[in-house]
Amino acid sequence: MSPSISPLAPAQIPDLPSIDGVKLATAAAGIKYANRTDVLLVLLEPGTAAAGVLTRSKCPSAPVDWCRSKLRVGKARALVVNSGNANAFTGKSGRAATMLTAKFAAKAIGCRDSEVLLASTGVIGEPLQASKFEGVMDELVRNTRADIWLNAAKAIMTTDTFPKVATASAKLGSATVTINGIAKGAGMIAPDMATMLAFVFTDAPLAAPVLRGLLRSGVEDTFNAVTVDGDTSTSDTLLVFATGTAAARGAPRITRAGDPRLRAFTKAFQSVLANLAEQIARDGEGARKLVEVIVEGAVSKSSARLIARSIANSPLVKTAIAGEDANWGRVVMAVGKAGEPADRDKLAIWFGGVRVAHRGARDPAYNEAAVSSVMKKPEITLKVALGLGKGRDRMLTCDLTKDYVAINGDYRS
Amino acid sequence: MSPSISPLAPAQIPDLPSIDGVKLATAAAGIKYANRTDVLLVLLEPGTAAAGVLTRSKCPSAPVDWCRSKLRVGKARALVVNSGNANAFTGKSGRAATMLTAKFAAKAIGCRDSEVLLASTGVIGEPLQASKFEGVMDELVRNTRADIWLNAAKAIMTTDTFPKVATASAKLGSATVTINGIAKGAGMIAPDMATMLAFVFTDAPLAAPVLRGLLRSGVEDTFNAVTVDGDTSTSDTLLVFATGTAAARGAPRITRAGDPRLRAFTKAFQSVLANLAEQIARDGEGARKLVEVIVEGAVSKSSARLIARSIANSPLVKTAIAGEDANWGRVVMAVGKAGEPADRDKLAIWFGGVRVAHRGARDPAYNEAAVSSVMKKPEITLKVALGLGKGRDRMLTCDLTKDYVAINGDYRS
Repeated sequence: MSPSISPLAPAQIPDLPSIDGVKLATAAAGIKYANRTDVLLVLLEPGTAAAGVLTRSKCPSAPVDWCRSKLRVGKARALVVNSGNANAFTGKSGRAATMLTAKFAAKAIGCRDSEVLLASTGVIGEPLQASKFEGVMDELVRNTRADIWLNAAKAIMTTDTFPKVATASAKLGSATVTINGIAKGAGMIAPDMATMLAFVFTDAPLAAPVLRGLLRSGVEDTFNAVTVDGDTSTSDTLLVFATGTAAARGAPRITRAGDPRLRAFTKAFQSVLANLAEQIARDGEGARKLVEVIVEGAVSKSSARLIARSIANSPLVKTAIAGEDANWGRVVMAVGKAGEPADRDKLAIWFGGVRVAHRGARDPAYNEAAVSSVMKKPEITLKVALGLGKGRDRMLTCDLTKDYVAINGDYRS
Repeated sequence: MSPSISPLAPAQIPDLPSIDGVKLATAAAGIKYANRTDVLLVLLEPGTAAAGVLTRSKCPSAPVDWCRSKLRVGKARALVVNSGNANAFTGKSGRAATMLTAKFAAKAIGCRDSEVLLASTGVIGEPLQASKFEGVMDELVRNTRADIWLNAAKAIMTTDTFPKVATASAKLGSATVTINGIAKGAGMIAPDMATMLAFVFTDAPLAAPVLRGLLRSGVEDTFNAVTVDGDTSTSDTLLVFATGTAAARGAPRITRAGDPRLRAFTKAFQSVLANLAEQIARDGEGARKLVEVIVEGAVSKSSARLIARSIANSPLVKTAIAGEDANWGRVVMAVGKAGEPADRDKLAIWFGGVRVAHRGARDPAYNEAAVSSVMKKPEITLKVALGLGKGRDRMLTCDLTKDYVAINGDYRS
């Protein structure tokens, strides 16, 4: 684990307000870590709508399989998350562990097993001893509180160096509704989707199909636009829950995705996703620089995305940025290897505001001192203009440092 | 640059025999490096057949464009290679530099400009001062010798820690023919094709279409099966030259690819390509471990290749190997992210001869001490059995160490 907090961590952690119908508790079940919490229980109001986006890995974890099956109903009463063990590649015992965990939680809560959603993060391939949850489940249910969002975010951390929380509010009808999110993720982060766990809660009365629609449009430019190392996890899980309690305060019940009354909510929801996704890039393992890669002038948005991803995942580009070297030659390499339409002789490249390359060659006006001062900053924008069309996209990533190697050479994830 | 020779370097460097019709010379033109040779000239017998495989990058270097155009004829009289500057992303001045280099060489040799093939490796985006070649070209032509293969390999090195040469011989008809190869490459190495320069020479009387056929079938399991960092260069160049001088000793002239008389030659040719490709993996920037990734039981060879590549390019797998950690969980992750057919519950994984995972979970019989001794070795085989079909493939790679980051954070390539 990384010994100190990422230098890119947000300067301030916001206080998250309570959300009617959401209560949280954490405990130390001793899954792997000593002297820290490693289980999170979230109790949800009866009737809470739920939706999710799960990893595209062909070897998903047992909790991912569990959620994929249970989310079809679109309802949930509880969420149990543990850190320290991903319950991935654990065969039949992994499936048994998910069933047992849901059973313990359902019994303590008084709901059906299938109403409990699950997520696990940590080491892959080690059996998860779900029996450890039995001892803490009653205590968790007893101790739930509405105001411990930061503790909740801490309980799900693995190699994260800081807890990740975000909040926003929006008008829905005449009522103000709240959106809170927590997330974890630092390595094994790649589209699609950024490898992480993220849970978003709102009191807005939104039906499950509405939540699905919000997720579908929301992840593309947030979690799917972040990469740390190009490695897709077995456990990627983004869940969203709507308790509907704001209906009592006059918020209209929304049952159809794309309802025009959702406009302000959609914007706030996107801002929470974007905020959490950016925090994951800021906590990239060993990261010292946050890098925004912008590609414009591509033949389409999807082509711009593929080129941006090729740049953002290139070890040579990322090590150059770690070395504070405005190495546009490696950017050209990464554009070239993406396989997307590109005309070398029309390419232009900027680091920060400084154009270093123009029309397929070094910009004759480019000032080494100016670009050198850009490269020393903790946040760097790298822009490529292809000059072919109107396709534009962006991705967030971080640099590749010796600390990334140290963290991943020692930690068994 | 890396200060010391890779611990994975071959124990012995073979002496390469002369090849009738091939003469070499090196010089120090001062392109970038001080106190070392940086230009190689190879003079080829009139009538020498030539063929090549060039980078698939959409932003190729100027010499790659040059070769692509000149290789259509299938003949060459000379090859000029420089290290220190890749002449890539250099715009019009880059094209002018290739024309000028070929002109200097052709004038000194007494051949047509179009009969001179070119390759450049080194920094991208800096103009190449071709005028520096003018001063050394006459000297190069005057000094060519048949027995300086190792010097030739040294002149084209960049971050390489050792020169790469290979040789083989084969019967062609009643004559014994020779195949010599030299290569460079250490970083920016990825399929397709492994980023590098490689030049192979033979005295066998083979027509250009025959050489093209040999390359087509030869690169797939050699240069295209090596990856260091997944980054494809702008400058990948593999050229093969056949002087035909062995015809005087009775070797039959071969004009048709697939001629059955080529069987022994094809095998020897493949062994030279495989040997050079393996040396590139052995010299991967910062590498301390050579890793052979074998995937079997896939639905097809191409599916096995994609999964092997996903494993071989995964930073998390590569850092785990650097840390001597038999982290099969990350292998599962890399199988899952490949997007190819895989059934988690049929997967088995071996490090060396030790099966660590079986039927989608940790192998209960697996012995930590045995696998730990495997992981300490400099050469590690990582095998994945998918249990779905008969598709099998292999890739070579190396571990990802802090030295990779150090080398690429400092060196501007």
